[in-house]
Amino acid sequence: MGTRRIEALTDGVFAIAMTILVLSIDIPSFPDGDDAARELTRYLRKDVWPELSQYVLAFITLAAFWIGHHQEFHHIRRATSSLLWLNILTLMLVALIPFTTAVSGDYPNVRIAVQIFELNMLAVGLVYYWQWSYATHRHRLVDADLNSAHIVKTRKAMLIIPALSVIALGLSYINPDWSASVYFLIPVFYHRTRLKMLLGKSPGSENRR
Amino acid sequence: MGTRRIEALTDGVFAIAMTILVLSIDIPSFPDGDDAARELTRYLRKDVWPELSQYVLAFITLAAFWIGHHQEFHHIRRATSSLLWLNILTLMLVALIPFTTAVSGDYPNVRIAVQIFELNMLAVGLVYYWQWSYATHRHRLVDADLNSAHIVKTRKAMLIIPALSVIALGLSYINPDWSASVYFLIPVFYHRTRLKMLLGKSPGSENRR
Amino acid sequence: MGTRRIEALTDGVFAIAMTILVLSIDIPSFPDGDDAARELTRYLRKDVWPELSQYVLAFITLAAFWIGHHQEFHHIRRATSSLLWLNILTLMLVALIPFTTAVSGDYPNVRIAVQIFELNMLAVGLVYYWQWSYATHRHRLVDADLNSAHIVKTRKAMLIIPALSVIALGLSYINPDWSASVYFLIPVFYHRTRLKMLLGKSPGSENRR
Amino acid sequence: MGTRRIEALTDGVFAIAMTILVLSIDIPSFPDGDDAARELTRYLRKDVWPELSQYVLAFITLAAFWIGHHQEFHHIRRATSSLLWLNILTLMLVALIPFTTAVSGDYPNVRIAVQIFELNMLAVGLVYYWQWSYATHRHRLVDADLNSAHIVKTRKAMLIIPALSVIALGLSYINPDWSASVYFLIPVFYHRTRLKMLLGKSPGSENRR
Repeated sequence: MGTRRIEALTDGVFAIAMTILVLSIDIPSFPDGDDAARELTRYLRKDVWPELSQYVLAFITLAAFWIGHHQEFHHIRRATSSLLWLNILTLMLVALIPFTTAVSGDYPNVRIAVQIFELNMLAVGLVYYWQWSYATHRHRLVDADLNSAHIVKTRKAMLIIPALSVIALGLSYINPDWSASVYFLIPVFYHRTRLKMLLGKSPGSENRR
Repeated sequence: MGTRRIEALTDGVFAIAMTILVLSIDIPSFPDGDDAARELTRYLRKDVWPELSQYVLAFITLAAFWIGHHQEFHHIRRATSSLLWLNILTLMLVALIPFTTAVSGDYPNVRIAVQIFELNMLAVGLVYYWQWSYATHRHRLVDADLNSAHIVKTRKAMLIIPALSVIALGLSYINPDWSASVYFLIPVFYHRTRLKMLLGKSPGSENRR
Repeated sequence: MGTRRIEALTDGVFAIAMTILVLSIDIPSFPDGDDAARELTRYLRKDVWPELSQYVLAFITLAAFWIGHHQEFHHIRRATSSLLWLNILTLMLVALIPFTTAVSGDYPNVRIAVQIFELNMLAVGLVYYWQWSYATHRHRLVDADLNSAHIVKTRKAMLIIPALSVIALGLSYINPDWSASVYFLIPVFYHRTRLKMLLGKSPGSENRR
Repeated sequence: MGTRRIEALTDGVFAIAMTILVLSIDIPSFPDGDDAARELTRYLRKDVWPELSQYVLAFITLAAFWIGHHQEFHHIRRATSSLLWLNILTLMLVALIPFTTAVSGDYPNVRIAVQIFELNMLAVGLVYYWQWSYATHRHRLVDADLNSAHIVKTRKAMLIIPALSVIALGLSYINPDWSASVYFLIPVFYHRTRLKMLLGKSPGSENRR
């Protein structure tokens, strides 16, 4: 079994999860009249922002996980039953993100609501790390000549989101409202670290795609 | 007509069904204030679990059906009108899963709510069995040299989920709450039985993908 | 511009529309207790059926339109701006089907609710007919050697759903409840007429896919 | 990293955003009886139109953005980290469209509700412009022999939707209800200007797809 179909299913789940995130932003319903205009204006200028910022955070993190998935499968040459089930576990946790995003967007200052989102991110990140470790252990599913330094560097890069999640969880005990903001750092890290790897010259990946 | 487009539509429906499963998990709305925090904490620590466990069950079963579909179409070489409509029937039942999942997650101790989910799974499983029997009867749509033993082994493997569903339906008369837990056995069976076939060396499938 | 990307977008929209149809089936919420069980049992045994039958109808019709789209694009060799916008019009009407399905499932005995569904189907059918006529007029976008008899036969087959819709609309004045049942005839027609064409030997289509 | 996977994710997000737009059209629930028929008839004949027209507008604009994306990526030969993140920003704004469509469809005569939709469109349009300018600056990511006149013409065409949005925002101060109607002009512009480019003969694009 090749990895092509796993990738197709994964791309589908990511695209859908990213797009239904928006359903987590509430559209309040006000009775008709002048009051509706005033209430809605207040909502769009003020109350919608926690939900919107949660949307942006979740979108960026999903995008980062999507990039990470491609980075992994760029090097993975074949699937085993274990890899397949690890990938299904990933998708199960990824598909849960619209739920945890909605909860933390609805209750931005309730600690457990924010933590559930951060735990979700931590879990996805750790499963990625697990998947990569499994696939690269003794070059199990990757090319025999894939550079070990590259494997280690990728493995370390995969700890960025789990590390940010641990920081966010710590911050949530101080101030739940802002703890998840650490995820805004993702594009910075990914811009510099991981993408360089993905886009750059890495041994064994030259002529695959 | 090749089978490529049928597979693309099928992959799409599976990815979407898997991802919108999450919409079946309710997000309760509590009035603002300290009570909200307490109520939400209680919800996330206790009341959400039947829905979450139902989500996990349904996700695993959908994943197993997705694997099963690939296993079938790995060997099917051409489509007929009957195969196409059997496949549409499959998709119709698969797309129903988010509904039956939501019902049984909302009412985990109402027997009929749980049974409707188990009947849904039974129905999908039986249509798969039917589809495979149709396609392999006298090697109708598969390669002429596809090993008969392999056909029979695959057919038997396709009875795993229907069998689990019958057990679950039986258990539902004793205790609806836990009857669907039998689906947690799917990864065990699939890990050992079906994937070995899919990933392993099977006659006639070597050089296709 | 080739037709490949138009087909990919179209397949995506069809897969999603088919899968979110299920959101049109309501999940009632009853207060906890013995009553919930009784109420839910009654709902699942009786009240859910109009919605479920509407779901099945809409799914079958969407599947038929999906088949029809492939039948058309099987022969269309290149896109023009007009074809592209006709296709976008098709998708706009197809994406509306979950809405009209939900309305007619919620109000199965209100004439206008049923008619809105039937008008939706009529509109999609007519745009298909328009698209095919546009593409085949003087062999504008199809192979020069595509058999004229085949073009005409396909054009006629494209009137099956519009014709059924007109019958359904007529019946809706007598009895809205059952008028849409005529769509259950689609698999019969498609099984015999159109698929034979699609799967059979038609000039100019042999070695394309 | 090639651009193929970025395009696949983008196509997925567009297909889903287009299809879940329909969820923005409310389905009112009336108590059973003769009144339900009367109320629903009134709703479908009158109250649903602002939502439906908003749906059509949003669908057309999404289709135009989808066309625009293909026009850009038709010429873009490779991805950089910056291009990838610009594309993710685009998708984040595109996935927001079902939300802003629902808000402006629910409150068609509240200025801010309509403006939020128009600002969304303006933002997507400007990010496209930015992306194209980035990719073509000194032929950074496009073929070295891509005609400069073509680059400029495409860049100008990318200002159509931003320009319409500015007009719509201006009109919204006079009459919010009708201001968004300017987007109905999109097919006219796209029919004449951009598609000609996309479908026509442009240097460097002949033999790619």
